Amino acid sequence: MPNIYDYAYDLEKAIRNSDEYKSLREAFEKVMNDSGSKKMFENFRNFQTELQIKQMQGEQITEEQVKDAQKRYEVIQQHPAISHLLAMEERMNVVMADVSQIVSKPLDEVYRELEEK
Amino acid sequence: MPNIYDYAYDLEKAIRNSDEYKSLREAFEKVMNDSGSKKMFENFRNFQTELQIKQMQGEQITEEQVKDAQKRYEVIQQHPAISHLLAMEERMNVVMADVSQIVSKPLDEVYRELEEK
Repeated sequence: MPNIYDYAYDLEKAIRNSDEYKSLREAFEKVMNDSGSKKMFENFRNFQTELQIKQMQGEQITEEQVKDAQKRYEVIQQHPAISHLLAMEERMNVVMADVSQIVSKPLDEVYRELEEK
Repeated sequence: MPNIYDYAYDLEKAIRNSDEYKSLREAFEKVMNDSGSKKMFENFRNFQTELQIKQMQGEQITEEQVKDAQKRYEVIQQHPAISHLLAMEERMNVVMADVSQIVSKPLDEVYRELEEK
């Protein structure tokens, strides 16, 4: 009987061969191959990461920061290659979140029992 | 061609059928079916969770808290059913961390290129 690792590698291969992944790679390369787009995307990404770290550390996000984020998002949406990349990222993230939920279901069940008993 | 979700469900089934998972469930049920062990385990779990939240929020863990954690861990190690459960949890966590690493490899590669370019 094949073991967990065999199935994990099969899943990895399926992800690599999926439309979602291939389209993301293409969208990503398009942005990376243009130095202007690349810089714009990286700035946006860094800003996003900073906000996420603040949220994880329980820091309050100010109204000003929310407005700043919205403005940055609007600006970046005007850029076709980048907005396409963001859409492809979102699509891939939905799949990966589903995969993660499916794969962690067995363990989640064990721990849900802890609360129910 | 089967899609990502089919492979994810196969992996879920493989996890459910694995020795690691079955042993964890058994160890877990043994602890849960004894009200004393259950209470002891839950206290320890709550303490662990509190510490993790503090760490995630960037709060400094004091020397006193570290000593407290060590003492609690030593006490719980004396309890055969609980220490067996902790060992089974650790074994399962290693497998799940490997699975997560394998499955996120395709996406990690895309983003690694961002830094290298």
